[in-house]
Parts: sequence; structure tokens; C-alpha cells
Amino acid sequence: MPLSRRLLAEFVGTALLLATVVGSGTMGLDLSGGNRGVALLANAGATAGMLYVLIVLFSPISGAHMNPAVSLVFRLRRELDNRAFAGYVLAQVAGATAGVVLAHLMFGLDVVQWGDHARTGASQWLSEGVATFGLVLTILLGLRHRAEAIPALVAAYIFGAYWFTASTSFANPAVTLARSITRTFAGIRPADVPGFVMAQLAGALLAMAVVRALGANNDEPAQ
Amino acid sequence: MPLSRRLLAEFVGTALLLATVVGSGTMGLDLSGGNRGVALLANAGATAGMLYVLIVLFSPISGAHMNPAVSLVFRLRRELDNRAFAGYVLAQVAGATAGVVLAHLMFGLDVVQWGDHARTGASQWLSEGVATFGLVLTILLGLRHRAEAIPALVAAYIFGAYWFTASTSFANPAVTLARSITRTFAGIRPADVPGFVMAQLAGALLAMAVVRALGANNDEPAQ
Amino acid sequence: MPLSRRLLAEFVGTALLLATVVGSGTMGLDLSGGNRGVALLANAGATAGMLYVLIVLFSPISGAHMNPAVSLVFRLRRELDNRAFAGYVLAQVAGATAGVVLAHLMFGLDVVQWGDHARTGASQWLSEGVATFGLVLTILLGLRHRAEAIPALVAAYIFGAYWFTASTSFANPAVTLARSITRTFAGIRPADVPGFVMAQLAGALLAMAVVRALGANNDEPAQ
Amino acid sequence: MPLSRRLLAEFVGTALLLATVVGSGTMGLDLSGGNRGVALLANAGATAGMLYVLIVLFSPISGAHMNPAVSLVFRLRRELDNRAFAGYVLAQVAGATAGVVLAHLMFGLDVVQWGDHARTGASQWLSEGVATFGLVLTILLGLRHRAEAIPALVAAYIFGAYWFTASTSFANPAVTLARSITRTFAGIRPADVPGFVMAQLAGALLAMAVVRALGANNDEPAQ
Repeated sequence: MPLSRRLLAEFVGTALLLATVVGSGTMGLDLSGGNRGVALLANAGATAGMLYVLIVLFSPISGAHMNPAVSLVFRLRRELDNRAFAGYVLAQVAGATAGVVLAHLMFGLDVVQWGDHARTGASQWLSEGVATFGLVLTILLGLRHRAEAIPALVAAYIFGAYWFTASTSFANPAVTLARSITRTFAGIRPADVPGFVMAQLAGALLAMAVVRALGANNDEPAQ
Repeated sequence: MPLSRRLLAEFVGTALLLATVVGSGTMGLDLSGGNRGVALLANAGATAGMLYVLIVLFSPISGAHMNPAVSLVFRLRRELDNRAFAGYVLAQVAGATAGVVLAHLMFGLDVVQWGDHARTGASQWLSEGVATFGLVLTILLGLRHRAEAIPALVAAYIFGAYWFTASTSFANPAVTLARSITRTFAGIRPADVPGFVMAQLAGALLAMAVVRALGANNDEPAQ
Repeated sequence: MPLSRRLLAEFVGTALLLATVVGSGTMGLDLSGGNRGVALLANAGATAGMLYVLIVLFSPISGAHMNPAVSLVFRLRRELDNRAFAGYVLAQVAGATAGVVLAHLMFGLDVVQWGDHARTGASQWLSEGVATFGLVLTILLGLRHRAEAIPALVAAYIFGAYWFTASTSFANPAVTLARSITRTFAGIRPADVPGFVMAQLAGALLAMAVVRALGANNDEPAQ
Repeated sequence: MPLSRRLLAEFVGTALLLATVVGSGTMGLDLSGGNRGVALLANAGATAGMLYVLIVLFSPISGAHMNPAVSLVFRLRRELDNRAFAGYVLAQVAGATAGVVLAHLMFGLDVVQWGDHARTGASQWLSEGVATFGLVLTILLGLRHRAEAIPALVAAYIFGAYWFTASTSFANPAVTLARSITRTFAGIRPADVPGFVMAQLAGALLAMAVVRALGANNDEPAQ
């Protein structure tokens, strides 16, 4: 598969993912009359549904990372070279930005708006670390034990993680960056982005270590 | 499979789809005491569930298009001839109309009511273009990469698209036309139908182009 | 498989189904502060989840009908003899009654309470006819086209049918009878039971006719 | 698979399960403005999603019991020896405790808080007995009839059981114990733990008996 085609897949996939996150957050809050619980049910359900779809559609082309933390893990496992890794991250950030802009256009909002939702402090960082730890654990053990279920696994995991972490589980540096240009339900203050990204990378590395402790990659499954 | 049987499948499938869209929208709004967020959760969940069922039941008979934009894509790909294409569109429009009437009868409403829900303007048209782009992308890449998952893919996509587009994602000219004869939650003003349909067709054609850029149809999957 | 074991499976399955319908309706209404939309989301989601489970667990033993209308269809298709049919219906009615009693005991309610929820009139009967038509269509075409997906198909169909019919889709004579002994969210007046059951049987027979029109049972699938 | 690796899997899995139960309960109640129905939808949906993920990830390593009542059943069926059984229970209790503490840290709450939610009396005990009966029935018949679907079966069952039992279905002694150190939505008074655990064990044993009555383990499936 030529790299240009893989990057197009990462771009389109990440754009649709962010359009979903920001669009469904906006719609959810608009319709639920301020009941943020209903809004987050819609936001989490729509995101999970689209993740399932996007991973089925794009994983045979690019692996459907749509997430620089995931691409970093595959770089460290030597399944991506430096050039592909750099291309993936750029395509993901560009796609994420395009997706936020697209959501703003669909809802008739200003194209770019600086996020004003404060998301900082130890509890939030711990939440992002746990969220990304769980995501990378899901991907690596899922690939080892039931690879064809990865789309459903990631979707189900993210639905859960929206609710069980205090940060609603961004778990993705490109998503975090792009959500700093929206003032909607899904936004984050630009100043809070670096703390989130560092916590996410720490969680991803911890997951790699735990997966290693749980057995070599070429283990026979026990069942 | 004789054409008459395929047309019967398109008619019954589209009728049940529209009965679901209009019926669950009515029930949702009735029960949720004006919380439109809860109503749309019910509406989207019921529609997704029924799409999964209808595509499993009818795709071995007719392909389960239930959507003139989808049939147009298959016509352009030469998988339908002119006669079948015309028959499909007629069966879909007739089925969609019958489904709306059935929902009205089940809820004791006037049989035909002209829609009064204004849905127009650039944001709405962009939403319908994006919604149909995503639907056709899902179908074409889904068929290429995991054909047996098409029922789950379309269901999950439409659940997400109800929420992430500003128009709640009609994404279907027969559905749009039929929803102009209901004044319930799911309705649309007759005057707004042409704009929606044109946006839907544009989105479908764009998806065909992107799928072509993502690789020839006979590509080997990379994974 | 001895008949006694099949009847035990029908009894346990139908009991757990009714405990779910009545229990989750009660819990939903208790917790949602009178928002019947949230209560029906919970009721429909819990019922769908349990139907998926019960059909996987019991279909290899008894077919997991848990519904006299479904058993009647299989009797007419000569897949059950008269003795088994009578046993199935008795086990289903006994199981359904036991399930309602169990739900009452779990929620600390009177063991038997005559239903007082009026459910009658042409719209309600049409709804039950449509609901059962769709259920039997789902089972018969599902068995023909993707038999291993029957548990997911029936679950997804019933989730949708709770919402798109005006009666919340009882679609089952044993369920209807048992719901006449509860005054909770899920109840029905005893006097309204016969109308529901007749509508259900009519819907089931219509589905058999439509399935016949859609092709002989030994058709090759087109896809 | 060495026992230490299996115990690590039980520990990590149970910790993530409890972080999900307590975290999503807290988030649900915070966001839903006191609508406990919306909170329980989120709590049940997140728990079901994570159970699906955790069972896929960990069952090839340890069986993914994450529940002393389940481990007891496998001990009685001689699929675990005494040493493994003791290790599993310790790892589950330690993991459950760690998960509750992690949820408290993510939400900035006191690390340990004694539960003050009264859950006692015959209706509650009956509910826990029924809940655990259904869970063990699901696992044992699921393993016999469709083993690869166990993750989806347990997830769907628990979603339903949150709603149809009056106790929201703890169905797990390690979960019960760990939920006694939280004062959040998911908590239980320490004094109420023993009654729950005894009811759970009774339900598990009853399920073993019913499974035996439904046929020997080496039965041929009928379908």
C-alpha cells in the first residue's frame, strides 16, 4: 500500500472522528436542555459507533490509528519507520483540525474558536493516563488475542472510558490539540493541552510494559 | 432472483424503515416530556437496530438499498441496469410513503400531514452532504473490506450520523420525500426536500471519488 | 433432546424474559423521576440484552421460542408436533407467570396485582399486528439468511419495536397474559388481553405469507 | 501459562472493572442533575462495554473470571485447583480494591470512604441470588453452546441485570467487598456485605444445578 494512500486514510478517518466528537457533543447539549448526562450518552454512543465503522473501513489501508499515541507505540514496536510515523502524525493532526472545522460549519458556528473549558490538575492527568493506558492495552492484547474484533473492542472501550475517567477520556494527542480550537461541549483550553498529551504518552508507555509482563507477543493463546 | 421479488424486498424494507423512523420519533417525543435529547437517543437507537435487521433480512434478496442514492451508486458502478434502477427507486419511494402512513395509523394520527419542520440553509445542506458521503463511504469500503459486517456498519454509522450532523442525517432521497408528509418530530417541509436531495446526491458522488482515490476495487487488503 | 428438557428450557427462558421486562420497567420508572422516555430506554435496552443472551443459551436446547405465536408458526411449518406445541405453550405461560411473580418479589411488591393499564382500540391492535409481523419476519428470513445471527437480530428488532409501535410491542401471547397480573409500567388490563393476542396471531400469519412471497424456503441466497 | 501471569491478569482486569463501575457511577450522577435513571444507563452501558473488552483481553490468559463466585464454580468443576483458586480470589479482591481507589483518585475524592448505602432485606438478597444465578447460567451454558460469544453474553447479561434486579446486580463477592469502601452512587454499607455474598453464592450453586438438569456437559447441541 503506497504511503500517500495510507496518509489519506489517516486524514479522512481522523477528520470524521473529530467531526463526530465535536458534532455529537454540540447536538447532544443543544437537545438535552442542559442535562449533560444525556448529552454525554449521545456523545459517547456516537463516538463509539463511528470508531467501529472507521476502524473497519480504514484498518486494511493504514491500520486506522487516528491517534499519534497509537502510532508512537507501533513506531516503538518497529511496525512503522520514522518517515511513516512523521507522516501519520501530520495526517492525524491535519485531519483532526479539518474535522473540528467541518463540525463548526455543519452547526453554523465560528470556524475557529479557542477552547475555554479548563481541564487541568492531578485528577485530570491521572484520568488521561488511565484512559490511554486502557486504550493501548485494548489494542495490543486485542491484536494478540482476537484481532478481527479490534473495531468493536476500541469502540466499547472508548464508550466506557468516556464515563469512567474524570476527563471523558481524550486519550489521543491529535484529538486533544484539535479540541483546543472549539468552545463547544468537547473543548479544552489551549494551555491545558501539554499536560494532557504528556499524561497520554505516559499511559501508552505503561501499557506497553504491562503487556510485556503479561507474556511475550508470540505466546500461544491459552484457550 | 426475479426482479419482482427484489422490488417486494425493497418495498417492505423501506416501509419498515420509515415506520421505525417516524414511529420511534413520535414515541420518543411523547414519552420524554419535551427532552429532545432523550427522544433522539430513542429515535437513533431504534433506527440503528432496525437497519441492522432489515439489511440482514433483505440484502440476499435485493441488496437492501432502501435508498435511491445508494441505488444510483450501484447504477453508476454498473451493478444495476436502467430497468432495475427505475424499479428500485419506485419501490423505495412507495415503501417509504407506506411506512409513514403506517406509523400515522399506529399512533392514531392523520394519515397524511404536510411537514412543517423548516430544514434549509447552507449548514443543513452541508450536513446532508457529509451524512450521505459517510454512508456511501461506509457501504463501498465496507463491501471491499468486510462485506459480512455491512448490516452492523450501516447501523453504527447511522446512529453516529443522527448526532454528529446538524440535520440528524436523512441521507436518503426516499426518506426525505416521505418525511415531507408527516408533521411529527421526523418531518420536513416539502419546499425543503429538493435542497436535501441535491446535497445527498453530491455527497454520494464525492464518496465514490474518495473511494477511488483510496485504491482500486480489486486491491488486496493490506492486513 | 428429550421433551422434558426442552420444556424446562422454555420455562426458565420465558421466566427470565418476563422478570426482565417487568423488573426493568419498574426500576426504570422508579429511577427516572417520571421521565418515561428514560424508563423505556432502560426497559428496551435491558430486554434486548436479555433476549440476546437467552436465545444463545436456550436455542440449542428448545429453539428458544419463549412465545406461543412463534411456536404456532413452527407448528404450522411442521417443525413441532401437536404434543410438543401444547407443551411449549404451557411451559411458556407458566414461565411468564413465574417471571412476573419473581420481579414482584425482587421489588417487594404484591405477588399478584391485576393490571390496570388500558391498552385497546384499533391503533393498539394495528401496532401489535405490525410488531408480531416484524418479529416473525425477522425469525423466518433470519433463519434462512443468517441463522447464527438470530439472537442479535431478535434483540435488535425488539429494541426497535418497543419504540416504533404505539403499544411498545408485546408481540407475544404469553407475555401479554403474564403482564395482565402486574400493575407496574409494563402492565395491561386483563380485558385487553384477547384483542392483543388476536392481533398478534394475525401479524404472525401475515408474516408467513410475505415470507412465502419472498421466495421458497430452499432458495439459494443471492449473495 | 504460569500462575503469576494469570494472577496479574485477574488483578488488572478486576481493577479496571471496579474503576469503571465506581467511576461511571460517579460521572453519571454528577452529570445527570439527579436523574438517577440517566446515571444508571451510563453506569450499566459503561460496565457492559468494559466487561466485553476485559473478557476478550484476559480470558486467554486467566479465564477472566474477575469474580470469586465464578472462580468457585470452576473450582467445583475441578477446572481450578485449590492453590489457583486461593490466588484468584486474592488477586480479585486486591484488584477490586485498587480499582475503587483509582476511581476515587481520578475524581479527586477521598481515597477510602466507608459506604453508607443501605442494601439489605429479603428483596435485595433475592435480587442478588437471581443476579448471580443468571450470570453463572450465562457463563456455563454460553461456554457449552457458543464459547466465543462469552464476552458479548456476559456484557449483555450484566446490562440487563443492572435494571431487572432491585439491587442493580452486584453478582460478585469481590465487587461487593470493594464497593463497601466508597460512598459514591455504587457504594454499599460494610454491614450489608455478608448478606449479599451469601445470596450470590446460593445463586451460583443453584445455577450449577439447573445447568446439570438441562443436560450433561458433553451433550450434542440440538441445532
